[in-house]
Amino acid sequence: MNNSHRMASASLLPKIDPTPVSQQFEAWKQAVLHSTTLTLERTLPASDEIPARLHEAMRYAVLGSGKRMRPLLCHAAGEAAAANPETLNVVGAALEMVHVYSLVHDDLPAMDDDNLRRGRATVHVQYDEATAILVGDALQAQAFMALSQAPVSTACQVSLVRALAMAVSSVGMVGGQMIDLASLDTKLDITQLERMHRMKTGALIQASVRMGALCAETTQLNIDSLDRYSTAIGLAYQVIDDILDATVDTATLGKTAGKDAKDHKPTYVSMLGLTQSRHLAQRLGEQAHQALKNLAGRTDRLHGLADLIINRLH
Amino acid sequence: MNNSHRMASASLLPKIDPTPVSQQFEAWKQAVLHSTTLTLERTLPASDEIPARLHEAMRYAVLGSGKRMRPLLCHAAGEAAAANPETLNVVGAALEMVHVYSLVHDDLPAMDDDNLRRGRATVHVQYDEATAILVGDALQAQAFMALSQAPVSTACQVSLVRALAMAVSSVGMVGGQMIDLASLDTKLDITQLERMHRMKTGALIQASVRMGALCAETTQLNIDSLDRYSTAIGLAYQVIDDILDATVDTATLGKTAGKDAKDHKPTYVSMLGLTQSRHLAQRLGEQAHQALKNLAGRTDRLHGLADLIINRLH
Repeated sequence: MNNSHRMASASLLPKIDPTPVSQQFEAWKQAVLHSTTLTLERTLPASDEIPARLHEAMRYAVLGSGKRMRPLLCHAAGEAAAANPETLNVVGAALEMVHVYSLVHDDLPAMDDDNLRRGRATVHVQYDEATAILVGDALQAQAFMALSQAPVSTACQVSLVRALAMAVSSVGMVGGQMIDLASLDTKLDITQLERMHRMKTGALIQASVRMGALCAETTQLNIDSLDRYSTAIGLAYQVIDDILDATVDTATLGKTAGKDAKDHKPTYVSMLGLTQSRHLAQRLGEQAHQALKNLAGRTDRLHGLADLIINRLH
Repeated sequence: MNNSHRMASASLLPKIDPTPVSQQFEAWKQAVLHSTTLTLERTLPASDEIPARLHEAMRYAVLGSGKRMRPLLCHAAGEAAAANPETLNVVGAALEMVHVYSLVHDDLPAMDDDNLRRGRATVHVQYDEATAILVGDALQAQAFMALSQAPVSTACQVSLVRALAMAVSSVGMVGGQMIDLASLDTKLDITQLERMHRMKTGALIQASVRMGALCAETTQLNIDSLDRYSTAIGLAYQVIDDILDATVDTATLGKTAGKDAKDHKPTYVSMLGLTQSRHLAQRLGEQAHQALKNLAGRTDRLHGLADLIINRLH
């Protein structure tokens, strides 16, 4: 049902929840972050299991901090589709493990060569390069193992595996990183920049939303609308990333600020300027909200996450 | 049925195939190699698909040469369980892609730092380090994608994904590589050396045999017997590897010879000496044949592969 129906039926209830929407959303977000952390804690091998140094490094990379945007998107879409929360925990954890693997590999000296991530030393700095490569490799395997054990039908497990594998493949996330590396010191036009981001970060963000909906086994949700939503927030996320890299300091960002300009990387800011980039982010935000308009199911979490992405400060 | 039953019923047939066993085995092996190559060719993205350099490097790493031991084991166990050959092609290709990803990452400068593999420049030498890291990452995803599309029931697809994910996880292949790296310049005892190999190469070899049997959906095959077989040939493979590294030249080997001693790596040869290592390989070969003794189904391919591993010259 759409928003106006929801409001109409809500008004028939004897008691209306007096908590403001923003507080409700914040409480939901904290609950998802908490359950995601618990699921990751129990999914990752213990740090005293052999080989202990590898397991310690995997836990260092994944646990601690992180915005957990992909688990949040998975839960939001899953709730819209009325999926089982425990399934969403497992699938959200798998998405986060794959995302962290990509960060650990992207930070390597042979790639973006970064020593700060989420406010802490990157894995190859804290441990060593070989360990960082193996941490990424093992996290990818762990994510697929988690999906193959999610509490859903085998048909649904297979759909989840296929969606994740496609999203992180050479025509998805990994391919995007390849194009990104090749773009240093070169001139991409705005279309090429957008394609790179659609692959590098957009594919996994789209998969997070789709996989959340898939967890419901059967859903009335319109996949095209969900895809329009995730395309818009995926690009918006990147535009804001470029704006923050150019305007915010390293301490606030938790990763090295000003790195794009230093690396001569094409960004939205370098191509459109700050003002135009801000307008673009706003427009993408509106597109995201618009895409949810005729979607069945509860969409307030998805709306809230779109606002969170557009208004984020780090 | 066991071997003696098979011979008894074969003798009732009007015509007996006059081709010697070794020629039959060689023909079967060539047929599997051929169909594996065809499957890999069509499973890997085309080299002109964007990003072209990544896809070209993935194909460079996988196609061309390779003993294809894991697809062969998968087919051999699958035929013993009467699995569909097309399924075995897909699963064999997935196993090979994961194996090649591990070789590409192991050869990196931060790991074993090798520049020769299968008689050609390693991927980071032929392309660059970043590309080699991404080739490995993408091949792992591609393998899981292939399993999620194998022509079997979804229940079987999920069992295959789970078996592969477990085999290449931090308590399997990746964990073994971590222990191997940590063992440079240290003294492992023979038990620790064996555990390292059981994880680093044994886990994927065991999975190759198990997954071949799994392809049959339902099988009478005794999994314990299959595991005893694969444990024996997995270790035998490693013992022979160590013997060859110490005794054969680089040209024959297709990878840098004498590297273990140069890197002060603990090996069977450095710990037991050449003669004892050869005896151990023989004994493991006998154990492998023994394990197949009471196995139902046709076991001649599995016997043949055990002989191939024990007698290999490179």
